[in-house]
Amino acid sequence: MNTAELGLPVDVPSTALFTDHYELTMLQAALKGGTAERRSVFEVFTRRLPSGRRYGVVCGTGRVLDAVRNFRFDEAQLAFLRERRVVDDATLDWLADYRFGGDIWGYPEGEVYFPGSPILRVEGSFAECVLLETVILSILNHDSAIAAAASRMASAAGDRPLMEMGARRTHELAAVAASRAAYVGGFSSTSDLAAGFRYDIPTIGTSAHAFTLVHDSERDAFTAQVDSLGRGTTLLVDTYDVAEAVALAVEVAGPELGAVRIDSGDLLLVAHRVRQQLDTLGAEGTRIVVTSDLDEYAIASLAAAPVDAYGVGTQLVTGSGHPTASMVYKLVARAASADADAPLEPVAKRSGGGKQTLGGRKWAARRYDAYGVAEAEVIGTGEVPEELAASQLLVELVRGGEVVGREPLEAARERHAAARASLPMSATQLSRGEPVIPTEYAV
Amino acid sequence: MNTAELGLPVDVPSTALFTDHYELTMLQAALKGGTAERRSVFEVFTRRLPSGRRYGVVCGTGRVLDAVRNFRFDEAQLAFLRERRVVDDATLDWLADYRFGGDIWGYPEGEVYFPGSPILRVEGSFAECVLLETVILSILNHDSAIAAAASRMASAAGDRPLMEMGARRTHELAAVAASRAAYVGGFSSTSDLAAGFRYDIPTIGTSAHAFTLVHDSERDAFTAQVDSLGRGTTLLVDTYDVAEAVALAVEVAGPELGAVRIDSGDLLLVAHRVRQQLDTLGAEGTRIVVTSDLDEYAIASLAAAPVDAYGVGTQLVTGSGHPTASMVYKLVARAASADADAPLEPVAKRSGGGKQTLGGRKWAARRYDAYGVAEAEVIGTGEVPEELAASQLLVELVRGGEVVGREPLEAARERHAAARASLPMSATQLSRGEPVIPTEYAV
Repeated sequence: MNTAELGLPVDVPSTALFTDHYELTMLQAALKGGTAERRSVFEVFTRRLPSGRRYGVVCGTGRVLDAVRNFRFDEAQLAFLRERRVVDDATLDWLADYRFGGDIWGYPEGEVYFPGSPILRVEGSFAECVLLETVILSILNHDSAIAAAASRMASAAGDRPLMEMGARRTHELAAVAASRAAYVGGFSSTSDLAAGFRYDIPTIGTSAHAFTLVHDSERDAFTAQVDSLGRGTTLLVDTYDVAEAVALAVEVAGPELGAVRIDSGDLLLVAHRVRQQLDTLGAEGTRIVVTSDLDEYAIASLAAAPVDAYGVGTQLVTGSGHPTASMVYKLVARAASADADAPLEPVAKRSGGGKQTLGGRKWAARRYDAYGVAEAEVIGTGEVPEELAASQLLVELVRGGEVVGREPLEAARERHAAARASLPMSATQLSRGEPVIPTEYAV
Repeated sequence: MNTAELGLPVDVPSTALFTDHYELTMLQAALKGGTAERRSVFEVFTRRLPSGRRYGVVCGTGRVLDAVRNFRFDEAQLAFLRERRVVDDATLDWLADYRFGGDIWGYPEGEVYFPGSPILRVEGSFAECVLLETVILSILNHDSAIAAAASRMASAAGDRPLMEMGARRTHELAAVAASRAAYVGGFSSTSDLAAGFRYDIPTIGTSAHAFTLVHDSERDAFTAQVDSLGRGTTLLVDTYDVAEAVALAVEVAGPELGAVRIDSGDLLLVAHRVRQQLDTLGAEGTRIVVTSDLDEYAIASLAAAPVDAYGVGTQLVTGSGHPTASMVYKLVARAASADADAPLEPVAKRSGGGKQTLGGRKWAARRYDAYGVAEAEVIGTGEVPEELAASQLLVELVRGGEVVGREPLEAARERHAAARASLPMSATQLSRGEPVIPTEYAV
């Protein structure tokens, strides 16, 4: 275990056990049966967007690259697999030397996607690729679900900043990835210190109701907060009576008070009243932050209200009704033998039940109209048509086991804003609808 | 950082940054203002169950004890807080020495809960308690949401075993906690190797469609799997044609074939056909495992079908429609001064908006009828009535900073089965309803 790679508190030095038991038993059977070394192509895609959603957001790609690099079995892990008899000794020996040595291409992080988009393509021997299924899907399904919700909220918020505050509503490590995904989707900051530590996302926060309540009076609480954090702080004004608290806040901090936060009640009504009161008190520059169980619809409903920033928790980290994407990792092509030059043959599940897939190694491109607006996601298995060559979507991420596609998180955030802006305007309608552009197959 | 405590791949040596920014700024203001040392009581509770649910399941308590013990700021974390100017130097010095030294009582893990149940009570100085809010809520809200879904699925499954297979549908570390919560709620096993490694939960799994597809024929695939994993294995029979695959499976493995797995299609119909076919082929002992997007309703609908085990993924790890519990961590009492003998005074938020709370340090007990069936959750702030003294719910978990309430996971699993069995029979109806027993306040 290379502890030097421990980017605590959220890196995990080995990702090898974030893996379903069956990946290893398949490996064992393939090693014994002689198919383990067949060259194989796996693709990640989704058959559908969450009901009513108009686009998806690719997120987690950077974390996938870390996970692939750290997918190594150490002694303790091998001992566990041996003791539990998960796989036989020959397989354990193979796992001890495991390093992914194949190639990965994918949609760059922040890009939008549609049903059928080949979001990630993993190519190598069957054995080395099949093992990565679970951890790749965990990351992409979680992070993309959060980023999609964040993107909708960012559209609804327009120019007003969004603060991610959902750590307490999800697993403590999922929360860190959720902050990251929210940032890609358009949020400006997070309350989660671990996300600041790990991903350099700006962190924010001042005080909770408990702070007011531990004091003998609201005046004592506001005074203590302003004394310590300065007049630019945000005072929470809904512990007792909002109007009294606003008056008190301006009295204590002066009109230089940074902001007031409202965390309960009818936010539309209360925001208007508080704005009027602040203005009357001469605190025209004091901002209003709202933070009570917001989702994209609540944010949109406050568009005309005098609100300066939104804090979003539960609905962000739970994907606003869709806490996971439905991406799958499917074998789409493989060689007919273990020979290095055996040609790839397309393969696909054929039985019913709505789980059919399209075999073959795919390319993807986005077609734009004369005004630069996206009009179709085009996917094919043969040659890329010349007119689409320049708008292909897959980029190289891993070459022969070496990560070549790493980029700063900021790049994914900017890419997402640009990709969303290139979609037809109906993409950002919050009402339920079909995918905003069709997926066309150029087979 | 004590790397000896690294129970890789899922322990995190320090939990101190799984914390909202505002916990630290409140700490700074309280340290400066003189309220930091006031003796305080925080309680975790929920105002309501998820819509339609009849009971909640306390889960994550064991993880909370680990998180409290590992809540320590190391040099890298302090440097981050200093560089980002999250808090001032006096606060950083205080954090460097931080160890929780207070007391924690709570509902034991696996117990059921209802609106208002004081699931956890954290007592100590304001400063030492307020810091723990975020990580405690993250753990309890996530794990309890999963355990509640698992419990409903376990009721629906009756005596048939449930296998947790959702790792690919949630964050890779949330998945490990989800496996643990599923086990507490009544699942028998998990596909997640990390959950087996970390929590000693039995792991299961054999093969996916990719395994069949990498071979030249289904016969080759089945032969390779049986050769390597034995006749007791589970063969996946829905890659091409189910009836042909079942015939082939019995031909290859013989009637000793362990099981067949069906992962798509109309499971009710297909299970009946497959059972009939297996019986006709003399494979009466071969079991049928189903695994396609199941939730508690789908499981219940298969009660009369010849199904031997269920594999559940997405709906388990996303809480079957309720991916988070709505637990909050509220200051309910505090001393009026920092004197060690200052009496505790109840406190509570009072403004509108549905977020009122009941002040004061609480006890809780469950009242049973003459037949031993639970009839009310009774919560109070004064003396415990004599007749309820023996059925109190809170147990001691941490005393003066030392964990005293650790127990094996099996204990939580058994406790949950017993607690659920003591509820009125309507508790396990899947239809939407009110909490199955009322919460009474004996104030």
